[in-house]
Amino acid sequence: MVKFEEETYLDNVRGALALRGQIEAIVDAAAGQCGNLCWLGIGGTWASCLQTTVHMKERSAMEVFALNAAEYNTTGDRRVGERTFVVISSVTGTTEEMCAAVEKLHAAGARVLGFIDKEDSPLARAVDWCISFPHNEQLKFFMTADRFMFLRGEFKDYDRYYAQLDACLPEGLAAAEKAADEFGRSFAKAHMNDKLHYFVGAGTLYGATYSYAMCYWEEMHWIRTKSIHAAEFFHGMLEIVDRDTPVTVFVGEDSQRELALRVAHFLPKVCGNFCVIDTADYPLEGIDPEYRGSLSHLLMHAVTNRIDAHLEALSGHDMKLRRYYRQMEY
Amino acid sequence: MVKFEEETYLDNVRGALALRGQIEAIVDAAAGQCGNLCWLGIGGTWASCLQTTVHMKERSAMEVFALNAAEYNTTGDRRVGERTFVVISSVTGTTEEMCAAVEKLHAAGARVLGFIDKEDSPLARAVDWCISFPHNEQLKFFMTADRFMFLRGEFKDYDRYYAQLDACLPEGLAAAEKAADEFGRSFAKAHMNDKLHYFVGAGTLYGATYSYAMCYWEEMHWIRTKSIHAAEFFHGMLEIVDRDTPVTVFVGEDSQRELALRVAHFLPKVCGNFCVIDTADYPLEGIDPEYRGSLSHLLMHAVTNRIDAHLEALSGHDMKLRRYYRQMEY
Repeated sequence: MVKFEEETYLDNVRGALALRGQIEAIVDAAAGQCGNLCWLGIGGTWASCLQTTVHMKERSAMEVFALNAAEYNTTGDRRVGERTFVVISSVTGTTEEMCAAVEKLHAAGARVLGFIDKEDSPLARAVDWCISFPHNEQLKFFMTADRFMFLRGEFKDYDRYYAQLDACLPEGLAAAEKAADEFGRSFAKAHMNDKLHYFVGAGTLYGATYSYAMCYWEEMHWIRTKSIHAAEFFHGMLEIVDRDTPVTVFVGEDSQRELALRVAHFLPKVCGNFCVIDTADYPLEGIDPEYRGSLSHLLMHAVTNRIDAHLEALSGHDMKLRRYYRQMEY
Repeated sequence: MVKFEEETYLDNVRGALALRGQIEAIVDAAAGQCGNLCWLGIGGTWASCLQTTVHMKERSAMEVFALNAAEYNTTGDRRVGERTFVVISSVTGTTEEMCAAVEKLHAAGARVLGFIDKEDSPLARAVDWCISFPHNEQLKFFMTADRFMFLRGEFKDYDRYYAQLDACLPEGLAAAEKAADEFGRSFAKAHMNDKLHYFVGAGTLYGATYSYAMCYWEEMHWIRTKSIHAAEFFHGMLEIVDRDTPVTVFVGEDSQRELALRVAHFLPKVCGNFCVIDTADYPLEGIDPEYRGSLSHLLMHAVTNRIDAHLEALSGHDMKLRRYYRQMEY
């Protein structure tokens, strides 16, 4: 399988899950002074923030909100104060908008937990608590969110759920990558020359839809996309779909599944070039069915990983290449 | 001027501003029992909700959030309860997701103020308070938001600000439409055959960017678009911009002006087909400069109205035509 090393993959997921002890210690110590909870990001990390707030708002009565770093730096947010707990993530630890935001958050009295992959970086030094481990940002965010909800009595199944994840998630996701490989190849082959590709999704998968379109296809593959929330699809975008329009629908298993399915059921009436990717097609051995909604975005990421690997191989376009980002001043 | 009747236009803005007494009476009576404030919409009204929350979060420490109606109907939101005041808007009063949402909001104990243009409609009957007057949804939302902030002591200038709006806004916006007419014609002519047009904006104009791209170009003109927040532009989308890519930047005068300007300054380095629409180019006689940020989205709407009028005239495509929306079951 191209670009897939199973042992490394398993180690990455296991390593992320093993951060739970550190996360619990931080959240348990901080939760008492926490009046509201803020997820702050930009670009790909902003998408992860969106996913996490969707996950929480169904379950928690806590004041939870996502902030875009650049928006916070300019507009500010009066809800941020001394009782605000902020969670951020960064691979490089140098993203300029994030560095400025942490400074502003501190000036407002907020405290910041950073998942900063590079330990020796400006962001790693700036945050109040730093956890450094590469990959699986979404899992780190959800573990943090779940611990807050557990402490508030809003996640009764916490221990059972995480026991299953620890025991079975790494192998489950690796199995999904393997099961999706042939699909990924055929999808990449069919769409590698698209002039414009539409991605539609809902729930915790909306963040995945948004970031997959923008951070992968646009930024890494240089293919134009539009992403849209499945709920919004019916209030405008549907009108430009015709027989040949390439549209892919991400269908997850959380509470908004029906919104994505509505698009999946509409498309065959007007379009002959659509694709539905349903996480329900991928088993997760050892994990209870009722937990799959909270893991759908991870399954979808396993599938899109296979599309990316084949798209890169087939097109010959190196995903690490950038035209402008960090290549020039602006 | 095509599709512009000045007296009707002035009457519409004046009529919306004249709703303020009704809005104040409702908000003044309800604010004491209000623990949090929710803006709920879908499609175009969702965009107006986004604009209003940006306007408020800079100024108010109140818990304020926007909910997409279809998301609320599926995922719910545990922050919604008996102390929640909800604001909605609908032209027809029949949008199915909105009808279902109001029912669910009521089941949670929340109370709903509806700006429902059609008095004799399901939504008008369902809401707790109904104000029926066509057009200017954004102005109605901002008046409601401003009254809440005034009562909390977060908007000291309230009386002075609205005295200026009452005296000068209708004529100011009409003047902007007239000033933008020739630009609107040339823009429509240049871009009427675009295969894909990008719109970028920030702050209260992000909602305008989103809805203009989706609800006008996609839904009404059947031209493909992507809209992106100016802050997010630099985290993915920039890589697919080349010499010929049609990109329009909406620049407003609120706190996020610099985010849009950053895109406007970047584009000339890589693109020869971009356009910047800056609300600062349009005077608003009699209105203090520091208030213009709160009115930029209205000025931008005046400009895009002119693009729409000419696009319809030049293309011969009737903006009222729909392929699918309310034309078929799905």
